[in-house]
Amino acid sequence: MDEHLLIQKYFSDIGSAFLAEHNVEVPIGDDASFVSANSNSQQVNSIDTSIEGVHFLATMTAEDIAYRSCVVALSDLAACGARPQWYSIALTLPELDEDWLKGYSSGLKKFSEEYRIPLIGGDTTKGSLTISVQVMGEVDKGKTLLRSKAKADQLIFVSGVIGDAYLGLIELQNDPKSEKNVNSYLYPKARIDLGLGLIDLATAAIDISDGLIQDLELICNASGVGAEIYFEKIPTSKNNKTLELINSGDDYELCFTADEDKLDQIIKLSKTLNIPLTEIGRITSSREFILYDKDLKPMNPASGYKHF
Amino acid sequence: MDEHLLIQKYFSDIGSAFLAEHNVEVPIGDDASFVSANSNSQQVNSIDTSIEGVHFLATMTAEDIAYRSCVVALSDLAACGARPQWYSIALTLPELDEDWLKGYSSGLKKFSEEYRIPLIGGDTTKGSLTISVQVMGEVDKGKTLLRSKAKADQLIFVSGVIGDAYLGLIELQNDPKSEKNVNSYLYPKARIDLGLGLIDLATAAIDISDGLIQDLELICNASGVGAEIYFEKIPTSKNNKTLELINSGDDYELCFTADEDKLDQIIKLSKTLNIPLTEIGRITSSREFILYDKDLKPMNPASGYKHF
Repeated sequence: MDEHLLIQKYFSDIGSAFLAEHNVEVPIGDDASFVSANSNSQQVNSIDTSIEGVHFLATMTAEDIAYRSCVVALSDLAACGARPQWYSIALTLPELDEDWLKGYSSGLKKFSEEYRIPLIGGDTTKGSLTISVQVMGEVDKGKTLLRSKAKADQLIFVSGVIGDAYLGLIELQNDPKSEKNVNSYLYPKARIDLGLGLIDLATAAIDISDGLIQDLELICNASGVGAEIYFEKIPTSKNNKTLELINSGDDYELCFTADEDKLDQIIKLSKTLNIPLTEIGRITSSREFILYDKDLKPMNPASGYKHF
Repeated sequence: MDEHLLIQKYFSDIGSAFLAEHNVEVPIGDDASFVSANSNSQQVNSIDTSIEGVHFLATMTAEDIAYRSCVVALSDLAACGARPQWYSIALTLPELDEDWLKGYSSGLKKFSEEYRIPLIGGDTTKGSLTISVQVMGEVDKGKTLLRSKAKADQLIFVSGVIGDAYLGLIELQNDPKSEKNVNSYLYPKARIDLGLGLIDLATAAIDISDGLIQDLELICNASGVGAEIYFEKIPTSKNNKTLELINSGDDYELCFTADEDKLDQIIKLSKTLNIPLTEIGRITSSREFILYDKDLKPMNPASGYKHF
């Protein structure tokens, strides 16, 4: 059974009788959960786990592991159009190695400085290296970017370029001293400013962690729509674009939908933030997901990263 | 180096320049962190990891694993005098076994029903069984129970009985079908009602996870005080009381301090909640921690659970 369906089946209805009394408005199924903090704003909560050998390489420095695992978690807030507030960490590690902890601490500091949020707590336990980062953000009431609001005929966009993080990962695996694309893998950006800029512009958004096509399908499934995507339009930095490259994940760019009449504002936003925003296709009412090749023939979109 | 000092050294000052602007009032070092939600209340956030073979037995059912890992996390809110609001889970598991997930889901439901809070989100990843539970609660402004407010001459209390969970763990390890004390290990209680009752009564509180003496020492260290404890007064259900029993941890009872003139109210609270609250000693100004045996001779208090 599909991972997302399994989670839906076994985790979507736990204590749901108590959602209303605790002001929780969007439960499981989006990038994050929303809780009314007061009459003007909502809190946005997300938690994300990074595991050695699965989500990051064992050869990476403690500093890079710390930084990357935090950015990856914060990326979910970007996809919701939220302002980051603070974070906490559950860190499982094999031993209390002071040198390692020192590096790890530096990586956290770098992350905290860049996104201007404090670490407010956590837990340390002994075991194989596993890092769960919980992030809290806020949005003005009713301004959250959800996965579920894409509608037929809206345009589909993607930020930045797709696949560089994957190229960086391959390089790191083969030659840890390579410097070509490794930064794209080691130091992804949480597109916070873009998420904030997309409020009132985008109708739905998601961050690309498991692969562009697979993550876009989550928008389609949540919104009850389909999509037509043009392979040639997908922005990559490599000339010989492949499905593998596009489906590789780890990009942490945003994929979003918007009404066609917002195109000028989106182009303007792209210039303001100096982030490429590329139109790659269109939402359809068909529930079908079609990827067209350069001759406009349907391709098999294959699939992105499977967690299990 | 001591685990608590290491964590203090490497995690206590990450992004602290941004605490104030995000209304975070008590950072790392207590059972939880406090964030001003509005002018009347504070949010209380905590995260706690349970690992197979370390924090629970591999032989336990998925339902029991789910329930226990959540209660253990919620116990930190009890120690802060907080009302639980919601929780999220980062679940790392070796495979998507539907039977296991079904049992796990039942355990979460049992927990949610008992404490009347919803699961609002989470993350699932593949790896060795590791469960991080993030809990969010609230307190009226200024009413949090901290570790740091114990003062000389105040009385020290402990709730319930100490050591039954440890006896249950031993039984489970030796004879999984034993029924004598296993429930104390499998189904601890988060002392939420007690924590709420202790607001304005207790001066400092902690939940006993790593052993009564070790956890009480955390109160002493945070408050800059010492303590005199009477071994004979420590409530256990077993006649041959041992240091091992008292230091075993896993009790999730509350240890707290209070001014002597609150004794009558504490006795009344004990009756109202039907929870034994036993006076076991007194806070001193000496910074020394002394455990007296039945002949009032100092004993070596030994130590509780070490995480590394």
